[in-house]
Amino acid sequence: MNRIITIGREFGSGGRELGRRLSEIMGIAYYDREVIMEISKRTEMSEQYVRQIMNQRPVISYPIHIGRHFVTSTNPVLQQSLEVFSSQREILREMAEKSDCIIIGRCADYILADREPARLFVYADIKSRIARCREKDPEENRTDAALEKEILKIDKGRAAYYNHFTGLEWGNPRNYDLCVNTTNCEIKNLAQCLAGMFY
Amino acid sequence: MNRIITIGREFGSGGRELGRRLSEIMGIAYYDREVIMEISKRTEMSEQYVRQIMNQRPVISYPIHIGRHFVTSTNPVLQQSLEVFSSQREILREMAEKSDCIIIGRCADYILADREPARLFVYADIKSRIARCREKDPEENRTDAALEKEILKIDKGRAAYYNHFTGLEWGNPRNYDLCVNTTNCEIKNLAQCLAGMFY
Repeated sequence: MNRIITIGREFGSGGRELGRRLSEIMGIAYYDREVIMEISKRTEMSEQYVRQIMNQRPVISYPIHIGRHFVTSTNPVLQQSLEVFSSQREILREMAEKSDCIIIGRCADYILADREPARLFVYADIKSRIARCREKDPEENRTDAALEKEILKIDKGRAAYYNHFTGLEWGNPRNYDLCVNTTNCEIKNLAQCLAGMFY
Repeated sequence: MNRIITIGREFGSGGRELGRRLSEIMGIAYYDREVIMEISKRTEMSEQYVRQIMNQRPVISYPIHIGRHFVTSTNPVLQQSLEVFSSQREILREMAEKSDCIIIGRCADYILADREPARLFVYADIKSRIARCREKDPEENRTDAALEKEILKIDKGRAAYYNHFTGLEWGNPRNYDLCVNTTNCEIKNLAQCLAGMFY
């Protein structure tokens, strides 16, 4: 069975960089945006729209009661959410089948549970996440307060999507094998250390 | 500054074994029961009593209102809790001063915060914790349900003591650098892997 490492991460925690560096050190495949690109291709939705769907809780439709008949509303947004998740599941399973790999986000820990992945969750305090965002984008000129609001909003969306489709709680240590706090941490060094754990 | 590793752990998660093995591999001091023994010596309370105090939330005393006078009750159990914690702080600081070391529990992550310890938290699902308890004590003949109840009670006590004196939440990833799930995990192998992270 291929070795799979899944990485859930808070926005700005460096989880994506950690995954990329780990994949370089270990010489295994790395999937991040590739998942979205592939979903976009298969569902014929734009990448941006797929990303938007994956960053929020699906809008639920309830049956509408008309007289004595029940009519299930065909809420198009909900349909699209389901389509994205279904496509996501298919793609992740294909990727896991192909070779050893590292997958960032996308509920991979849950979708690939039967393949017993090493499930990482990467987090950090809000100050260091703001600092990391500024480092990555020197032209970022919003205030700390505005950035914090944005970061927490993104996390809320990720959590909502994850919780909805997995029935688990995003970021709860029970759902991961290793939770790593990257506050005041050099991702480069951390990747070296963690790679030792996975050899 | 000496290198300090603190290990908080759920009962039955193998955190103590992990600490002992890490200390052997890294060749550094290991403190577990030693802390209790030393507190017992300095406070002249029995080891068992010290342990009991450290496994529960201190009983708070409120001022008693008599007529127009306020009289602060001198609750002896609360006094003893405070004495134990004060002694605990003193001892841990001495240990951290002496050499590199690994300290199990005892709010060491909080007490030694200014020494920037690597703060581990070790946890596991309840089934594997029950199995680990049976493995350690083959004469353990309580039912799974009874063992589970006991394990959760011990954790509740540890959490209450920790939360009371630190003002933080025991087991919350925000308060640790690394949280390790030992479910289905060989502690021996895990110790080897983690040691690589601390060299």
